[in-house]
Amino acid sequence: MQEERPYILISNDDGYTAPGINYLIDTLMPIADIIVVAPDSPRSGAGCCITPNVPLTCKLMHREPGLEVYACSGTPVDCVKVALNRFVRRRPDLIIGGINHGDNSSVNAHYSGTMGVATEGALQGYRSIAFSLCNHSLRADFTPLHDYLLKFTEYALTNELPPFSCLNINFPLCESFKGVRVCRMAHSRWQNELEEREHPHGRPYFWLVGDCAELEPEATDTDRWALANGYVAVTPVNLDLTHYGLRDKLNFDAL
Amino acid sequence: MQEERPYILISNDDGYTAPGINYLIDTLMPIADIIVVAPDSPRSGAGCCITPNVPLTCKLMHREPGLEVYACSGTPVDCVKVALNRFVRRRPDLIIGGINHGDNSSVNAHYSGTMGVATEGALQGYRSIAFSLCNHSLRADFTPLHDYLLKFTEYALTNELPPFSCLNINFPLCESFKGVRVCRMAHSRWQNELEEREHPHGRPYFWLVGDCAELEPEATDTDRWALANGYVAVTPVNLDLTHYGLRDKLNFDAL
Repeated sequence: MQEERPYILISNDDGYTAPGINYLIDTLMPIADIIVVAPDSPRSGAGCCITPNVPLTCKLMHREPGLEVYACSGTPVDCVKVALNRFVRRRPDLIIGGINHGDNSSVNAHYSGTMGVATEGALQGYRSIAFSLCNHSLRADFTPLHDYLLKFTEYALTNELPPFSCLNINFPLCESFKGVRVCRMAHSRWQNELEEREHPHGRPYFWLVGDCAELEPEATDTDRWALANGYVAVTPVNLDLTHYGLRDKLNFDAL
Repeated sequence: MQEERPYILISNDDGYTAPGINYLIDTLMPIADIIVVAPDSPRSGAGCCITPNVPLTCKLMHREPGLEVYACSGTPVDCVKVALNRFVRRRPDLIIGGINHGDNSSVNAHYSGTMGVATEGALQGYRSIAFSLCNHSLRADFTPLHDYLLKFTEYALTNELPPFSCLNINFPLCESFKGVRVCRMAHSRWQNELEEREHPHGRPYFWLVGDCAELEPEATDTDRWALANGYVAVTPVNLDLTHYGLRDKLNFDAL
């Protein structure tokens, strides 16, 4: 009897037509059976948003041996929930978010729908990875990532991750990478985040914009440092949000 | 010269008209000047979702001495960003999300827009708290929370929290509380999350539903345990998502 190929669930936040997710599909099809359940339109910045109050719909967009692609009306996390509860043919061996068009290092991980995919996967007990390239362009060149995508995927298929953890993997915008760094999440802060405009009838409206300020520019062990210096940044993420140090100090017994 | 009163920014995910946020405003007005920038409609499950691709609008709904209330078209995190970049009159001493109508303990913290408010506040360098009551009803009785809301707020106004941290405070559904427990986030897992229906024209659609299964029913140090046993659950939250234990074990030098 032939051994079953690995089975991988892929989603993203740029939508199922985005070049990033399609590059990932093409790269992994030689080594795995793949199911894609991804948003039917871009959902950048969706974080772990879910859709409890609007019904979700899904449409099969493509099927060939070893690949099924569904477009879903919901958020990235909704896509994972719908996939796991309805569309997977067996238990996935791995869940991947990406490849995102844009940087999800540092505090961006909180807002990232790509990280939402990996977060939901890990909360549901699956090995999970988010891949992002630091290039927002729809015409980004993903070819330098090819061998790394395969190696990280093979790593995740053959190694356990601790419960309530996932990997946030960001690729710098380079033609080739200096290597891989295992990092911590850089502390940074978005600032100047609002651009005010005026509606033709005189009312103000606002665009979310901003720049991301380093809070620890000297640190060399962060994902921001790795990316700025040409390394692939692997940030292991803990989904148990407890601040254990603070827990051990706080005391409200007198309240 | 009279000493300035504390200045508190409040938002939520149930929208500015919700009883929970209005109970919080009423409770804190005697001790602080308050600015509210909250969603113009319910945004439950918004997590840390932001709105980069749609312009945001805000409307002043109410103004009296010591209180301004703005309704914003965006998510809870958008509301905090808009407030801090545009509407605050001075630097807030504290940012509060809530009072949420519903339980935000355990993994719910990942999906919670109320926690999105506190997360964004802490990422921006402010002391931040999320308050939630384990009761989804719009007619929930918030009066048992009154003295606790004041005491937690006074605590946060007079004590620093570590950088990149906030407090996730959940109240059980009781007429009186046994006390306050400082907790860790319970590991639990949503399951049976999809209910399938059929559109009149025959297409399937899905509602997100589900039940939350305990993964560690014996543990007595978790927020779920505290709430199930009549205690107010204070879960200190770490917004540095790095899994430090995993970071120290992973090695991709051979890649």
